[in-house]
Amino acid sequence: MKRILTLETLKNIKKEVALAGWVDRRRDHGRLVFIDLRDRSGVVQVVGGTELGELRPEFVVEIVGRVEKRPENLINPKIPTGAVEVKAKRVKVLAEAASLPFDMGTEELNLELPTLLDYRALTLRYPKVQAIFKVQEAIIAGFRMALKELGFTEFQAPAIVPVATEGGAEVFPVKYFDHTAYLAQSPQLYKQILVGVFERVFTLAHAYRAEPSVTARHLTEYLSLDAEMGFIESWEEVVDTAEAVIKKTLAAVAQGCSRELEMYGASVPETSGKIPRIKIRDAQEIIFKRTGRDVRREPDLSPEDEREICRWAGEEYKSELLFVTHYPVSKRPFYTYPDPKDADYTLSFDLLGRGMELVTGGQRINDYNQLLANAKKWGNDPKDFELYLQAFKYGMPPEGGFALGVERLTMQILGLENLREASLFPRDMERIDGRLSELRKRKKTTSTRKR
Amino acid sequence: MKRILTLETLKNIKKEVALAGWVDRRRDHGRLVFIDLRDRSGVVQVVGGTELGELRPEFVVEIVGRVEKRPENLINPKIPTGAVEVKAKRVKVLAEAASLPFDMGTEELNLELPTLLDYRALTLRYPKVQAIFKVQEAIIAGFRMALKELGFTEFQAPAIVPVATEGGAEVFPVKYFDHTAYLAQSPQLYKQILVGVFERVFTLAHAYRAEPSVTARHLTEYLSLDAEMGFIESWEEVVDTAEAVIKKTLAAVAQGCSRELEMYGASVPETSGKIPRIKIRDAQEIIFKRTGRDVRREPDLSPEDEREICRWAGEEYKSELLFVTHYPVSKRPFYTYPDPKDADYTLSFDLLGRGMELVTGGQRINDYNQLLANAKKWGNDPKDFELYLQAFKYGMPPEGGFALGVERLTMQILGLENLREASLFPRDMERIDGRLSELRKRKKTTSTRKR
Repeated sequence: MKRILTLETLKNIKKEVALAGWVDRRRDHGRLVFIDLRDRSGVVQVVGGTELGELRPEFVVEIVGRVEKRPENLINPKIPTGAVEVKAKRVKVLAEAASLPFDMGTEELNLELPTLLDYRALTLRYPKVQAIFKVQEAIIAGFRMALKELGFTEFQAPAIVPVATEGGAEVFPVKYFDHTAYLAQSPQLYKQILVGVFERVFTLAHAYRAEPSVTARHLTEYLSLDAEMGFIESWEEVVDTAEAVIKKTLAAVAQGCSRELEMYGASVPETSGKIPRIKIRDAQEIIFKRTGRDVRREPDLSPEDEREICRWAGEEYKSELLFVTHYPVSKRPFYTYPDPKDADYTLSFDLLGRGMELVTGGQRINDYNQLLANAKKWGNDPKDFELYLQAFKYGMPPEGGFALGVERLTMQILGLENLREASLFPRDMERIDGRLSELRKRKKTTSTRKR
Repeated sequence: MKRILTLETLKNIKKEVALAGWVDRRRDHGRLVFIDLRDRSGVVQVVGGTELGELRPEFVVEIVGRVEKRPENLINPKIPTGAVEVKAKRVKVLAEAASLPFDMGTEELNLELPTLLDYRALTLRYPKVQAIFKVQEAIIAGFRMALKELGFTEFQAPAIVPVATEGGAEVFPVKYFDHTAYLAQSPQLYKQILVGVFERVFTLAHAYRAEPSVTARHLTEYLSLDAEMGFIESWEEVVDTAEAVIKKTLAAVAQGCSRELEMYGASVPETSGKIPRIKIRDAQEIIFKRTGRDVRREPDLSPEDEREICRWAGEEYKSELLFVTHYPVSKRPFYTYPDPKDADYTLSFDLLGRGMELVTGGQRINDYNQLLANAKKWGNDPKDFELYLQAFKYGMPPEGGFALGVERLTMQILGLENLREASLFPRDMERIDGRLSELRKRKKTTSTRKR
């Protein structure tokens, strides 16, 4: 008999079906035993006798049984299959499971972060944890679809790069045969090169930051959705495109993940109106007026400033999203286009959402000589940017682009407390799957043994 | 006036339009000047006077002009816009370009590989080179669509891993704060862990091999399309899925890239029939009978064997694709499922196409104790596989999967001579963008200067 998914029991009432999945919970009521069987479509209640009594949580089983409607008063409104249950006829264990280190059968998986990550292969199975990555998949798919509709080509950026181009301190060195290479901090230079090829490009890249701190907001390996477009008529075209793309991305999440959002009591930011845009200097004036904190000469917004200006946008425009534009030259990379009206500022923007930076972008310098001069002015050796500069030397249209941190957006949509929760296998200063302190201990033991 | 693409001139005959792109070629005929204007949609001929005479190849220009039908005898059948030309009225240079290091206006871009790569930002612009990556994009999109239709979840695998699990010699070490981490050689362990979560998963991963050789078939950073599925009823279900997915992937390329395939005089392998399947031992018998070379006791097929057995499949089954199955235990990783009928062999397969391995896969051991025993038998420290083994300790269904090398498939479809041509920014032992020998020279100079 061909297996069906638990969700499909709803369409098979009074029929005999074969199901397969994991034992999610078991409840014994004398001779009657109930189990919740979990598969990729959700959970269904199975009822049977002693043959179910030997199953333990996370056992992998195949169950043949008959789908029955539950009486009205026993319908479980919390699960989509709550109106049915399966009367087990035959049970086959496909794989056993060791005793669980914690109870997976609770309403909430209340674990401390280290435990959540130490048992990642297990905790990822928890439906509410799975939901995070369904939302993440929808973000990526939504971004992809939005850009494909606009004629963008998807490309794959290399992660091994020859020089540490964007700040030497926070970069990971790679032993590359007899050389030292580095892990890319972003696909920025490659996406710009490819504007000279495909005009409009995007990528989902792995980006690496050797951030020597363990905060709730940093990962050493993270996912960056990066887009870049040529032949722009003005820098506003880049902001407009970013706005259109983020709206479509959020709409894709809202449409495809209603169940997942519900599990978190979450919703995507409301985007029916135009997202307000404000220059950083004006934002700082407003923050000063609202709070008395004089941040008007700061080159950037602090996390506190970001939260305050988001509150303002909520009150003033009923918007959860806000573009802050025209950051000072000093806070942006050398390739950022200076504002023709005020050379201390740049044609750059951040999209803030729910108090945090979600997207960053701007117009880039496309004139070869200007770019070369700026690279030098910023203290760079043009030789380190040879391939990048080549793209501009041989004709680059006016262009700009933007980047979106996938884990950050996931975190903000669902209201997660720690960015690590939004990464399947988060890496930080103290952890790569397991704890690095454990790894070091063990390696020392091993080498002692070898001697 | 809003810019249209050059391909859209066909729908704008007798209208004034604005175009933008790169000067592909220029031909002067006395007072008349012709240029081919290239944008992301292709090329169109622009005719004008002296104002065009100042343009050089790769200049980025905006041209306003009137679209006219060409006389019948002047239609150019080689380009889709060959029936029209644009009479230039106004020309604006958006960006100049330096003199080209080689002629880009030839029918074929006949460059040696080192030049092709030294000037990658420029040579990627050549339409026939662009076409390679349009095919590659279609492969990835086709694979993705085929698996989404089958209920697979797309995930992102980490590239930084804590231990060198799949052979220590060919792995790149990363300086990870006070530790040594490594670049993942494949997403294998993570996709298996996630079968315990989502049942069916796939990813496009960057994979790293410190292959200390410079051959036409190896890259140090390459793209791997990886799929893995649980609750399989037999290992043939994995082969069947691989077959269905590769067929849909190839169909997507054939459908979406007819122009690109035409540029190479190429076609995707014909897949109307069932792809033949043969055990490696039987393949070796056939090779012995056909060639007299006795390879019957070899544990694997050599490249020569692969070509020979592909020839046989072509003659015997009119098939350009062939599954070779049941590789010996000694040639497969510790997690490969042994053949219950003959423990010296495994439930594994390779898909060969046009003389080369394109896909590799098989059923995996899902029983925790058997997997643990095998890991040890292969000389591994189970501590190095802690997170991976955790997934099996807590219940893993029967499962298997497969992986496809993206650059290899691109190369085989288009008949490229070198795998590097199928990588936007290929990395090998001697090159990361630029040549590493140059980098070393320069670094020495720099450090001398510093002293």
